Amino acid sequence: MNYKMIFYTVGQVLIIEAALLLFPTIVALIYAELFVAFSLAITAVIAFAIGFSSRMIFKTENRVLYAKEGLIIVSLAWICVSLLGSLPFVISGEIPFFVDALFETVSGFTTTGATILIDVEKMSKGLLLWRSFTHWIGGMGVLVFVMAIVSKTPDRTMNILKAEMPGPIVDKLVPKTRDTAKILYLIYIGLTALLIVLLLVGGMPFFDSVVHALGTAGTGGFGIKNDSIAGYSPYLQWVIAVFMFLFGVNFNLYYLILIRKFKNAFSSRELWCYVVIFFSSVVLVSLNIYPLYENISEVIRISCFQVSSIITTTGYSVCDFTSWSAPLAKTVLVLLMFTGACAGSTAGGLKISRVIILFKKIGNELRKVLHPRTATIVTFEGKRVDESTLNGVGTYFAVYIFSFIAILLLLSFEKTFSFEANFTAAASCFNNIGPVFDNALGNGSFANYYVFSKIILSFAMLLGRLEIYPLLLTVAPTTWLKK
Amino acid sequence: MNYKMIFYTVGQVLIIEAALLLFPTIVALIYAELFVAFSLAITAVIAFAIGFSSRMIFKTENRVLYAKEGLIIVSLAWICVSLLGSLPFVISGEIPFFVDALFETVSGFTTTGATILIDVEKMSKGLLLWRSFTHWIGGMGVLVFVMAIVSKTPDRTMNILKAEMPGPIVDKLVPKTRDTAKILYLIYIGLTALLIVLLLVGGMPFFDSVVHALGTAGTGGFGIKNDSIAGYSPYLQWVIAVFMFLFGVNFNLYYLILIRKFKNAFSSRELWCYVVIFFSSVVLVSLNIYPLYENISEVIRISCFQVSSIITTTGYSVCDFTSWSAPLAKTVLVLLMFTGACAGSTAGGLKISRVIILFKKIGNELRKVLHPRTATIVTFEGKRVDESTLNGVGTYFAVYIFSFIAILLLLSFEKTFSFEANFTAAASCFNNIGPVFDNALGNGSFANYYVFSKIILSFAMLLGRLEIYPLLLTVAPTTWLKK
Repeated sequence: MNYKMIFYTVGQVLIIEAALLLFPTIVALIYAELFVAFSLAITAVIAFAIGFSSRMIFKTENRVLYAKEGLIIVSLAWICVSLLGSLPFVISGEIPFFVDALFETVSGFTTTGATILIDVEKMSKGLLLWRSFTHWIGGMGVLVFVMAIVSKTPDRTMNILKAEMPGPIVDKLVPKTRDTAKILYLIYIGLTALLIVLLLVGGMPFFDSVVHALGTAGTGGFGIKNDSIAGYSPYLQWVIAVFMFLFGVNFNLYYLILIRKFKNAFSSRELWCYVVIFFSSVVLVSLNIYPLYENISEVIRISCFQVSSIITTTGYSVCDFTSWSAPLAKTVLVLLMFTGACAGSTAGGLKISRVIILFKKIGNELRKVLHPRTATIVTFEGKRVDESTLNGVGTYFAVYIFSFIAILLLLSFEKTFSFEANFTAAASCFNNIGPVFDNALGNGSFANYYVFSKIILSFAMLLGRLEIYPLLLTVAPTTWLKK
Repeated sequence: MNYKMIFYTVGQVLIIEAALLLFPTIVALIYAELFVAFSLAITAVIAFAIGFSSRMIFKTENRVLYAKEGLIIVSLAWICVSLLGSLPFVISGEIPFFVDALFETVSGFTTTGATILIDVEKMSKGLLLWRSFTHWIGGMGVLVFVMAIVSKTPDRTMNILKAEMPGPIVDKLVPKTRDTAKILYLIYIGLTALLIVLLLVGGMPFFDSVVHALGTAGTGGFGIKNDSIAGYSPYLQWVIAVFMFLFGVNFNLYYLILIRKFKNAFSSRELWCYVVIFFSSVVLVSLNIYPLYENISEVIRISCFQVSSIITTTGYSVCDFTSWSAPLAKTVLVLLMFTGACAGSTAGGLKISRVIILFKKIGNELRKVLHPRTATIVTFEGKRVDESTLNGVGTYFAVYIFSFIAILLLLSFEKTFSFEANFTAAASCFNNIGPVFDNALGNGSFANYYVFSKIILSFAMLLGRLEIYPLLLTVAPTTWLKK
């Protein structure tokens, strides 16, 4: 194993984090929050110092990285970035306990949006921006970012990308990985900027617009109001609902649209499934919550917003849906937590393409029982899905369910909450959504969980965001002991 | 498709059901329940008439059956047996509504033990015996029973057995399937008789002993008291706890013990996993419920009983565990609902061997990521598990989870119950356990569910018992339309 290159690359990532910390520092200075600016700046200095030393110490001529190293770099980078990223909260005293600050930061970088804050409106502007900025950074993956800047050999970077990019299939848009990453980032930045403009047009203050655009782009869900998006105008709610939906689409599609390959873009099977699932869910939720609201336009807006928020694993909300006496609507939302949106988007969860492939695998198996001697081929997006991908997706599903069960079991040591509360808390963190379904939790906050549970849930968020394998490999003793 | 042979065999099964109905008829006569005896007898006559006509009409020279026909026979037989078996409840007027009676009978034959009765103690002896007798019949599978009597060609019967026997691996004990079934039945009858004797020794009345022995052997769970087993002495509770555990063991093992191949019997990996899971669960539950009870012996007895009852999917209970304020204990029990006990036992659920193979598959996949060029072999019970079994188990797991989700979604149209109640009701019926976790349901009864939900849950019980594929194939239009 190329240990040197691993730590060298992680060092690189920390230097970038140091640079990114300067933005919230400047914002804190603008709002005259001097101590907050200091706590952000000192963290930037620490991150730079550690990153720079790591780069110096582990400089190596052997730059070859295999899949294994790629996966470990990804895990370590997310862990280190989260550990350092939580320092400003602790230093400033706004989240004095380290485990709480770590939970909040992991929740940010993994684009979960689960919070331990009970009153978010008390936070300083600088830290609110940093919190939402972590969503945006996490959204496309810290490592893709690094790669776009530091990658040297395309083969190596593809290994990291495989671990980083959500979903089973990684399509190279253009031959060079570095260029691919650049294109994805330009689309990401472009859509974010467009969202900020549309929010400003609707009369949302500038700071609010930026924060919510960052949270929407990363499909994260951190806000700056205790009632999330509920206090904003219907126009603003619609804009955010539409953009959450858009950030749940595979980014390849936007590239295809940019280069005017419309036919290719809209022939995506996953896209159509996403659309169908979205609208069927909206219909079911609307019918179920109709008796609870006054008029039909409110029902449709709320349904669209909540379905969009949950399927893309963002987690913003426009109503207290935890108190709905509508079991069907709640079950639909819980199921959407697990499906997630498209592969290659910033969303969490299983991803729709995996669900499609699983269903095709099941159909295939049933056909085999009916016609044992017929050879069957599974196709997806016009291409044949080979046996190893098919089995890989099946195994991933099993790992995914078992991981969820393990998290749920560990969370059950909590004496405070009901089975339903623990189930949705585990589902919410593992699928990187954010809020939970239980009133008892006080505004969807995780503040009242045990320290043990907060650590478990932080791990769950990382596990979900990194799609399990990288983290499992990193913590497995055999990875480190064997040659 | 050999339609004639399908209906011929189903007819055969109904004739056997007619014969089996004579036992409860006699019991009803002994207890001087004349109208109950009449309703049982008239059902026997109807079953015989339909079965006999079906045999006459569909008599055929072509006795060849393939997997497809085998699976359809199994599904149709269970459905027809349940439809007819529910008649005595309706005719006698003790369960006047047909959907309720069907729910109760499906619950019986699938060895679930879920009931729509609120006061079971009001029922007549004759129908109580029939109810528990359906567990016993269902336990080893209606079809294995038929096979042992009517099978002609070993190849054909093996096809049916594959669909019928729980778990991924069917081991032929002796070369001829008919002999295998006979041996299994002798073991089954022997263990049931032994249990009756041990219960009588403990002072349980004869009728009660028979009913509880039938319910325990079939891992069903129908009782004759509103508080299930709670009113019986600790000795009787221990006897039932031990026998529930024993009926969760693969029956091949008892055969191996009978022919004195002790080493083979106790080298089973599945058996040891079963034992380990059982005792770990007992420890976790005991620790969690310790503060709720007075003394340690009560805690251990209750934990052993409940764990044994849930892991074997029986469903008897000795305490109101729905009101435990012990989330960990509840989560452990919910998880045991899904694992189930050993393959080749009368238990429902996923079966431990499947869970083991799934974990091995996951480990294999992780090793592949670490060492992409190394060939890896998965072994289980000393034999290599071939790729197709491995993938089959993976696919089954996906089908299983998706089926559960579909049931949960359909059940969510219920406005009455919480997410937790619906979740455990779906899990309980699908895994053939029986009682549910919610106090609101009134003693674990399904009486208050909508008619629609009762039909869904009846289907769920059949789906779980027949391990999904047979029923899916039977209801799939392509099965019937295509050549």
